[in-house]
Amino acid sequence: MPQQTLYDTITEIAKRRGFYWPSFDIYGGMSGFVTYGDLGTKLKRNIEAAWKEYFVRKQGFLELDDPVINPERVFQASGHLDHFKEYTATCTKCGKGFRADHLIEDATGLENVEAMGGAAIKRLLAEHKVRCPDCGGELREPALILTMFRTEIGATGGETGYLRPETAQAMFMSYRRGFSHAREKLPFALAQIGKVARNEISPRQGMIRIREFTIMELELFFDPLNPGCPWYSEMEGTVVMLYTEAMEADGVKEPLIVTLGEAVTQGIILTEWQGYFMGVSQAFMDLLGVPPEKQRFRAHLPEERAHYSAQTYDHEVLLETWGWTEISGCAYRTDFDLRNHMEASGLDMTVLREDGTRFVPHVVEPSYGLDRLMYVALEASYERKEKRNIFHLDRTLAPYQVAVFPLVTKDGLPEKAQQVKEMLLSKGFWVVYDEAGSIGRRYARADEIGVPLAVAVDYDTRDKGVLTIRDRDTWQQVSLSLAELPGALTAYYRGEKEFPDLGLPVNKK
Amino acid sequence: MPQQTLYDTITEIAKRRGFYWPSFDIYGGMSGFVTYGDLGTKLKRNIEAAWKEYFVRKQGFLELDDPVINPERVFQASGHLDHFKEYTATCTKCGKGFRADHLIEDATGLENVEAMGGAAIKRLLAEHKVRCPDCGGELREPALILTMFRTEIGATGGETGYLRPETAQAMFMSYRRGFSHAREKLPFALAQIGKVARNEISPRQGMIRIREFTIMELELFFDPLNPGCPWYSEMEGTVVMLYTEAMEADGVKEPLIVTLGEAVTQGIILTEWQGYFMGVSQAFMDLLGVPPEKQRFRAHLPEERAHYSAQTYDHEVLLETWGWTEISGCAYRTDFDLRNHMEASGLDMTVLREDGTRFVPHVVEPSYGLDRLMYVALEASYERKEKRNIFHLDRTLAPYQVAVFPLVTKDGLPEKAQQVKEMLLSKGFWVVYDEAGSIGRRYARADEIGVPLAVAVDYDTRDKGVLTIRDRDTWQQVSLSLAELPGALTAYYRGEKEFPDLGLPVNKK
Repeated sequence: MPQQTLYDTITEIAKRRGFYWPSFDIYGGMSGFVTYGDLGTKLKRNIEAAWKEYFVRKQGFLELDDPVINPERVFQASGHLDHFKEYTATCTKCGKGFRADHLIEDATGLENVEAMGGAAIKRLLAEHKVRCPDCGGELREPALILTMFRTEIGATGGETGYLRPETAQAMFMSYRRGFSHAREKLPFALAQIGKVARNEISPRQGMIRIREFTIMELELFFDPLNPGCPWYSEMEGTVVMLYTEAMEADGVKEPLIVTLGEAVTQGIILTEWQGYFMGVSQAFMDLLGVPPEKQRFRAHLPEERAHYSAQTYDHEVLLETWGWTEISGCAYRTDFDLRNHMEASGLDMTVLREDGTRFVPHVVEPSYGLDRLMYVALEASYERKEKRNIFHLDRTLAPYQVAVFPLVTKDGLPEKAQQVKEMLLSKGFWVVYDEAGSIGRRYARADEIGVPLAVAVDYDTRDKGVLTIRDRDTWQQVSLSLAELPGALTAYYRGEKEFPDLGLPVNKK
Repeated sequence: MPQQTLYDTITEIAKRRGFYWPSFDIYGGMSGFVTYGDLGTKLKRNIEAAWKEYFVRKQGFLELDDPVINPERVFQASGHLDHFKEYTATCTKCGKGFRADHLIEDATGLENVEAMGGAAIKRLLAEHKVRCPDCGGELREPALILTMFRTEIGATGGETGYLRPETAQAMFMSYRRGFSHAREKLPFALAQIGKVARNEISPRQGMIRIREFTIMELELFFDPLNPGCPWYSEMEGTVVMLYTEAMEADGVKEPLIVTLGEAVTQGIILTEWQGYFMGVSQAFMDLLGVPPEKQRFRAHLPEERAHYSAQTYDHEVLLETWGWTEISGCAYRTDFDLRNHMEASGLDMTVLREDGTRFVPHVVEPSYGLDRLMYVALEASYERKEKRNIFHLDRTLAPYQVAVFPLVTKDGLPEKAQQVKEMLLSKGFWVVYDEAGSIGRRYARADEIGVPLAVAVDYDTRDKGVLTIRDRDTWQQVSLSLAELPGALTAYYRGEKEFPDLGLPVNKK
């Protein structure tokens, strides 16, 4: 029997407890689509809220929410209609299509074949005599296929539309309004959390590459002659692992360990804004449970870089299953996009400087795939301890905040525990209640869905108004009075108090 | 010049300040799509959070998040492929298609023509000699057209898929997993907030009927022999305005004024669960600013009811622009959907009672269109006072919580105000900062985006650490110390303190 990987373990827990599972499974499924259950929906929402804490609220950036369906004109203007394509090899026998670069990677062990370009892909496919992985049939020469979902807008045959494959174009289309809402001052940013869809030819890797997913992305607009970031000083001392473009080109294996400030000064990172966002990004991954030594930033080589980018750093985290995995890109898009949309729309998107000169704002863009981050948060916080599964999710990310258990299901304890639950619900907490099985099993069930604190209601609660709080991470308990409970939990969830300080020590029974 | 309606006023403010505007407007627009700006995105998120407060968190219901794209098989099983159609009349001259029922309504003044059925629609269209509203051309006999967005899943020609037109099927497809996650106990509910798309033939009415929108919906599963709702007593005393099926059939104009409890007892409302959710719904609309006298519940007539429903009450609110407008439907779907999916999937969805009998759970479903609710919240909270626009949004819904203003832009006041802003940001508040123009204009700008409280930093703040809080709704001010500010605001936003009690009275300058 093949060994169960960590990915398998997490997938099993995710299905059984209700984080996520393959969509439409009662009708045979459809690869590339994921359904989030109760826990996954809540975890996703909490990661979104955390992203806004790190990237939007404190900076006062503006938010945006644009449709998923866009008319064709938009993707003509943005260049997607020409560029959002993949080399696809179709089988002459069974008719199935496959991404040519993936077929080559599987056959040769080469990495990042996509970046090598069409000629190399055609040559490698022929050289290695790659055949259909499904039926062994001969493959046609690969052709570029558009990988956006196509539809018709207007039920009686109106206009062609596509589901957006990214959210950035929405921010560029709304740039003029955003600038006006930002009181016509630079820098400002438009941030969006929204659904996108990519019509992947042959989706694989489970949660890492799906067809419909959520992006969290922001476009920061600034004057290239005034490129300072006001919060830069908060991040310039952050130490990061970096692979520069030159190191990538030379195949250097050891990363450069450097502060973001030094990297910006040396010109390895082109702008303060990229440096700032890379620092925020590292802190954000830290919140998800990924320590700095499992994070690195890797520059794109010129041939790998998107046509709009002057420099892109991928933020990668080390996963047990897939090795170094991209979770974010931080791109310096220059004025490429606004210039494009200015030309296509005929509208003026320039800004007037005090000295009378005009310019098109430049753009730095950090971008995240939310669904992938959810898997990262689960893998990074997972621990197997004494045959139990624990997700050490940060208290701000945990789907439920408090579990309430009666010690036994008699002598009025369930009724008392229900009162405690109702009281905590009235204070705004997300609460799970459980009275099935031994209290040890109930603690284990709560650990397995990452509930940070569990409140046990016992005879002391009934008789003296005293209860215990048990910590998911240390399995330690403290005791406190019923009256103190809501205040203690509020302080804990606002980050003002830590666990052992919520009450008095209790010897584990 | 035609008089400006309230809808026009709100639309103008929404565009200018950044609540929402027509999508793709830089490329000529596309009717039926709306873009949310910073304020709209935040207001929408707050309405979502409020819905979860009212319908999910306290009840401990389970959440779900399913893809928008579904394979055709799903809509075959659900019946959408046969039923999600509209009678469409196409012009013989210009080729444009129009909803036949809307054309008849415009031509005759009749209401709810859709419910009359196909034969009546064809007859009325011919009788009234309705012609193309665009070019005056003759219309073809109306035909049923599928109004789901169609696409292909798999870029190389895979399987037909559609964008879901509602979210309910997701809950039925996940029913078995949900039941397991609910520890195999009834009643339980699956709730979802998610995007849907309807390929409307000729969208109109701005924000009220759009092609891509968000639904907030829950499916409550219960045993029909044990139909009690544990929270029913909270709502049975709520007085509502009701139009029963019999009243509708008889054309009764005056509503029945009745408590939900009486209505359930008399069998006018079929189940406690509907009664409960209708009460919650009325309270939810109250939060959005709609008083009970502008709310009513109207039963669907049998011919108007969806094929799955044993009883549906629409919740309607009175809008200035469109009169009574449906914002929600509360449907008793019986076991129709689960039976359907059982048959189509071949999977068992029955539940075993303690007495050994088996049954298919019944379903009650309250359902909301979020985008429409956003317009309702804006219209219901709008006031024009002394030539100013004010949105009296509930404090839990307001896009920003606090505005910070320096009295003047000199003498160190902007620096002091920035410190206050940073302090409030660090405490987790959503803050706007404004120093442009007179302080009166700044208060007016904050009122126009519904900021409940504004903090003014003046010489007393600099010299004595005292500042003033000004209330959006009463325009009154109180003074308090800088040290007291975060505590006062926290108490206010948790609903523990009301405005004049946040400090000491100040005479308006």
